[in-house]
Amino acid sequence: MARVVVDVMLKPEILDPQGRAVQGALGRLGLVGVASVRQGKRFEIELEGELDDALRARLEELAGSLLSNPVIEDYVIREAATQGAPA
Amino acid sequence: MARVVVDVMLKPEILDPQGRAVQGALGRLGLVGVASVRQGKRFEIELEGELDDALRARLEELAGSLLSNPVIEDYVIREAATQGAPA
Repeated sequence: MARVVVDVMLKPEILDPQGRAVQGALGRLGLVGVASVRQGKRFEIELEGELDDALRARLEELAGSLLSNPVIEDYVIREAATQGAPA
Repeated sequence: MARVVVDVMLKPEILDPQGRAVQGALGRLGLVGVASVRQGKRFEIELEGELDDALRARLEELAGSLLSNPVIEDYVIREAATQGAPA
């Protein structure tokens, strides 16, 4: 049983109005000194078996097409601890 | 300059229809053996200074109120490497 985390974030050169809104709100609510906020998506995928090379290759393909929009987003795939807190 | 990542996920007991839809799509697109998918949010926050105890406490408060809905979501805060790939 493997657990895979895929983080999808807007590419650095893409404006993130949602992140800017959060940044403004954090400032108004008293968190000073916030230089920037970017908001993205996080997918936690549990697999029934282990993460072998074939599965990893297919997951890479799908992370770059289904889970993210390659025109504006980057993704990072990593294997996480199977149980407990998010890694 | 500190970089903080806040991951916000639905609590385990809360149904995640968006994650279920992604799980179904992954299966249809040829990724077999996916036991579950949960989708959440990821915030990357860059601070102008260092993350001291006072700032961390305020950030904890805001992560539990502004960035997440404590009724249905859990959050995890961690300090990340300042530069490079998402941690």
